[in-house]
Amino acid sequence: MKTKFAVIGYGGQGGWHTEQIKKSDVAELVGVFDNRKEKRTLAEERGLKAYPSLKALLADDEIEAVVIATPNDEHKELCEAALEAGKHVICEKPVTLSVEDFDEIAELANQKNLIFTVHQNRRWDVDFLAVKSVAESGDIGKVINIESRVHGSRGIPSDWRTKKKHGGGMILDWGVHLIDQMLQIIKSEIVSVYCEETHITNKEVDDGFKLMLTFADGKKALIEVGTYNFLPLPRFYMQCKKGTMVIRDWREEGHVARLKAWNEKEIVPVETASGITKTMSPRDDITLDEYNVERPTSDVHDYYRNFCKAIRGEEEIIVKHDEIRRVLKVMEAALRSGETGEAVKTSI
Amino acid sequence: MKTKFAVIGYGGQGGWHTEQIKKSDVAELVGVFDNRKEKRTLAEERGLKAYPSLKALLADDEIEAVVIATPNDEHKELCEAALEAGKHVICEKPVTLSVEDFDEIAELANQKNLIFTVHQNRRWDVDFLAVKSVAESGDIGKVINIESRVHGSRGIPSDWRTKKKHGGGMILDWGVHLIDQMLQIIKSEIVSVYCEETHITNKEVDDGFKLMLTFADGKKALIEVGTYNFLPLPRFYMQCKKGTMVIRDWREEGHVARLKAWNEKEIVPVETASGITKTMSPRDDITLDEYNVERPTSDVHDYYRNFCKAIRGEEEIIVKHDEIRRVLKVMEAALRSGETGEAVKTSI
Repeated sequence: MKTKFAVIGYGGQGGWHTEQIKKSDVAELVGVFDNRKEKRTLAEERGLKAYPSLKALLADDEIEAVVIATPNDEHKELCEAALEAGKHVICEKPVTLSVEDFDEIAELANQKNLIFTVHQNRRWDVDFLAVKSVAESGDIGKVINIESRVHGSRGIPSDWRTKKKHGGGMILDWGVHLIDQMLQIIKSEIVSVYCEETHITNKEVDDGFKLMLTFADGKKALIEVGTYNFLPLPRFYMQCKKGTMVIRDWREEGHVARLKAWNEKEIVPVETASGITKTMSPRDDITLDEYNVERPTSDVHDYYRNFCKAIRGEEEIIVKHDEIRRVLKVMEAALRSGETGEAVKTSI
Repeated sequence: MKTKFAVIGYGGQGGWHTEQIKKSDVAELVGVFDNRKEKRTLAEERGLKAYPSLKALLADDEIEAVVIATPNDEHKELCEAALEAGKHVICEKPVTLSVEDFDEIAELANQKNLIFTVHQNRRWDVDFLAVKSVAESGDIGKVINIESRVHGSRGIPSDWRTKKKHGGGMILDWGVHLIDQMLQIIKSEIVSVYCEETHITNKEVDDGFKLMLTFADGKKALIEVGTYNFLPLPRFYMQCKKGTMVIRDWREEGHVARLKAWNEKEIVPVETASGITKTMSPRDDITLDEYNVERPTSDVHDYYRNFCKAIRGEEEIIVKHDEIRRVLKVMEAALRSGETGEAVKTSI
């Protein structure tokens, strides 16, 4: 039997959830609620049941689980209301604007013995899975440094995402995904967080950032989001002990250069206009292998499948409280660093 | 009449100078000195005059100017000895390991009324000149952020460059060029310096770094050197108000995307495995123009031409004391930041 869902918040992301749930083999959509009348009308025009109020939705005993897809500052109240009404909860990211707020919701969920998790759907992104797979395979040795970049050129969406009080800005919007992905690959403790924000199209919240993480085991990560980049840098760049991996674009295969032998017979210096350099000249194919990595398969419906099994106690939930909490802590440190211009020494 | 030069230090870079001077229309090579006997023998085998001692070289009244191309920690003593002997001086970079040392040499040069400058030859690099030209043209508006990267994969050269006392490490070796270039494009005061070093193949000195500069006028720069990168990221990446420029490789033309119109009629979201994004989807050619930038012409011999004219009072020296000093101050701040893990607030 399919799990019966309702979606709270029928904007862009809420709309996406209703479409996914309608296509799902494990979930079934009962209805939606949005506090904007025009969105409720839109839902009805699309043949969905639109509850007249949040109260009406939460009072519907048919609904087992809700997806919350509202502006970020409304998440806490809605999560708590849903849990109080005995519903399991998937909340959009970032779940809350502080670790304390998250802890309160998590505690309530534990008390009520309900599943409460966050929609970290980008754990199913194929580019991320390709990097994770190469990192874990050891094919090019241990990870030294991973750079994860997402570059757009339209500034930030002009809705509530431009406002601090609603939890706007790219650290919270995209950072949350890229940090979560990174912490799925690099498991060591974070000891330093340095972040520089950009404010090109928006003064109030960041419209991009460079975030540098240093881990206790010496690994490094750079997470960058840009919304004023008319040409993008590669999506992923990973340095390992025995090679380097690049993924240029979401839709492209990963490209790997694997070291076969450290020493070369003869180094041909690269000539630049004003000098030569051996240090920076490219290697030949005697010491280096280059190849593409097949794209992993991925199905984001596995997110719902896992959630539905978890609420029946058949499987452990994939996106766990301690993971969600850790990402929130990194974002708090990033925002503090971005504001002060200082590196934040920490243990996360 | 050609200016008569001697070269002190006949290693890789000293050898390069002798070749350049032999081809020069303004300079003439009298001889070389190296404190290693085998290098003096090598010079003689190549038909060059090798002085038996530094003293003998400096006592030769025929020599008007010397090029100093020794390990970095020998520069100061040699610069001062050459100036005391009445020679004009070109010193390899980095000229000294501290700003104080530099100031002492500069003061002596001024007292003696001799030209003393540093071999910042990479101001003649075509890739750098292409970026500078686009930045200054205003074709894609004001500069927001410039990233300058040089990626090799052989670690650092295994000579004196691995030792701290000799002034080894990539901040001093390549950083000095990339910082000098950057400060030729961005003229504002530097207010913050953050640097993360890498120590992948070398514990004692950095074998690469990421250096983040914030300028008083809000501009940003990222300077990165890597020696363990089996695939390189683009050499230059520049974000401006009306576009973005990328130069992938030393030998390639620059590629520019210029914004024609901010608003699009319809944004086609890019689909990733686990979701869609409008913010990060590419623009169409209605709002964006893409084109290549012709490579500027450049002749590194202009460096010697300027120096020879400057010692005759016919031209101002291009690589000036205050510029050299400023680069040294940035490197000092970078090394301090790299060591402490803190951002250095400054005014350089």
